[in-house]
Amino acid sequence: MSKKVNIEEACELLKSYNNIMVAFHRFPDGDAIGSAYALCMALRKLGKQARPVCVSEISERYSFFTDACMATTLAADERLVTVDVADYKLLGMELGQADLAIDHHTSHREFADNLLLCSTASAAEIVRKLIDGLGVEWDKNMANAIYTGICTDTGCFKFRNTTPETLRAAADMIELGADHSYINTLFFDTKSKLRIEVEKRVLNNIEYFEEGKIALVRIDEDILSLPGLCEDDLDGISALPRSIEGVDIGITLRKNNSGYKISVRASARADASAVCAECGGGGHKGAAGCTVETDFDDAKGIILAAAKKELSKLV
Amino acid sequence: MSKKVNIEEACELLKSYNNIMVAFHRFPDGDAIGSAYALCMALRKLGKQARPVCVSEISERYSFFTDACMATTLAADERLVTVDVADYKLLGMELGQADLAIDHHTSHREFADNLLLCSTASAAEIVRKLIDGLGVEWDKNMANAIYTGICTDTGCFKFRNTTPETLRAAADMIELGADHSYINTLFFDTKSKLRIEVEKRVLNNIEYFEEGKIALVRIDEDILSLPGLCEDDLDGISALPRSIEGVDIGITLRKNNSGYKISVRASARADASAVCAECGGGGHKGAAGCTVETDFDDAKGIILAAAKKELSKLV
Repeated sequence: MSKKVNIEEACELLKSYNNIMVAFHRFPDGDAIGSAYALCMALRKLGKQARPVCVSEISERYSFFTDACMATTLAADERLVTVDVADYKLLGMELGQADLAIDHHTSHREFADNLLLCSTASAAEIVRKLIDGLGVEWDKNMANAIYTGICTDTGCFKFRNTTPETLRAAADMIELGADHSYINTLFFDTKSKLRIEVEKRVLNNIEYFEEGKIALVRIDEDILSLPGLCEDDLDGISALPRSIEGVDIGITLRKNNSGYKISVRASARADASAVCAECGGGGHKGAAGCTVETDFDDAKGIILAAAKKELSKLV
Repeated sequence: MSKKVNIEEACELLKSYNNIMVAFHRFPDGDAIGSAYALCMALRKLGKQARPVCVSEISERYSFFTDACMATTLAADERLVTVDVADYKLLGMELGQADLAIDHHTSHREFADNLLLCSTASAAEIVRKLIDGLGVEWDKNMANAIYTGICTDTGCFKFRNTTPETLRAAADMIELGADHSYINTLFFDTKSKLRIEVEKRVLNNIEYFEEGKIALVRIDEDILSLPGLCEDDLDGISALPRSIEGVDIGITLRKNNSGYKISVRASARADASAVCAECGGGGHKGAAGCTVETDFDDAKGIILAAAKKELSKLV
């Protein structure tokens, strides 16, 4: 069990440390990276040693405010602070006991001595308050890092998690020098050539059922074997079939070693978890998943039967 | 020449009118519609007669806060107020002399007796200040209309025109009841089946030149003759080739009666207007256009030569 602390108490803890490792989760997103780097920049301005650490490599995309951050061991006098880490396992390495966890996931599994948990849209919104609380002067680099965290965790303010406070925090970052136009273009208006190729192939195999209320796409060997393809190029593809007008249930079948991993997305009136429960899977009302160990035609038949059953419940 | 008025003076004018037509431009977007409806709702709360008017039909998409608004003549005692109209011609009909124009386009061509011009990202941000100035109590419907105007004119806060004030105005609207999650999904996460078909066909004909620095797509008869296709389904397609990583010049060739309409988009380091100037067109650095009266192969040759010339200037 962690001791729960508020912003003020967390600031006192940070001020009492001299040498700090700020660790964030493996396969990091913009929020983990932005929050950790911004916190390190602020701590350094207080004359402390601070380094951001992650087991995974940081994508080139973040180079406008990041530098190298690999490390696998804590120095003798170094304190461990985590940001955006909902579960110690997600660090992907053993770093010893954490002094302070800063997180925004309501599903947080306690592991640190102290925990600052706020249910904001992004961890960056919490770090932003810490920076204010520490009394550090803002600069453009810090504002860029926090803005990146906020906008990447909210789909550029499009997702349901966006609150009035989220928008106001972003407004403050722009006033403090964040280059929102550059960052928005980089993360929300740029697609790799491979991503374009993936989208082309997915759109070419889209199938509609039940008068267009079900849309199904297939991510098969022809896509997965594209030279140089990385997970980034497939990010969010499973949201595509559901985004089509009139579709209540969007299905993505993705080949794996033993069969197909199925992702289901539902409109506000349908239940994706009910569809996946029929096939031994689960999830939330809006998004759920399951795995079937069979070939494409069988997998398609199984999930379509479940989707049609769910559709029949709707008026 | 119009008399320039500020928010306070515009409020005094509006208070002095009893019967008001609020007209907005033909082929209206979310900002024109949202601003005009919100202003009418507010004026009615002050006990006035007010009706939103547009020469074009309003898309079903806006039905969550709109109703019918067709009219072509001003009543004898009715005052004409325009919102989001940069030029009288854009009304698409003759309604007589306008008493007050409320606009955010710096390119505004004066036509009304009085002009309230603010260089905000959206007209909705101005109307929002007018509603506050009129002292009208906000309701969910008004907040939905203003939020729709703000988010549709800024690409959900993604475009360069978004300011800290834009984000704060949107934050206020959410607090006043705007259903931002519903509106964001409706405008930014929903594609028609025809749009999906258009994107598929465009991605299938994409061509790269000069080591991927130029991308070219073609909107030809096979796309333009899709049954039921409307302009909405093609909206923003010309931004697609430029959004591909590594592309400096994105070109879209669209068939018209006499040849091809060419749209060019450029990255921050290239100049689209220089490319189009070579072919007798013009525009801005980021986006420009021209028209060529020839067949596809010739049109492609002409614009590629101009694009390569521009590329050769870049380091």
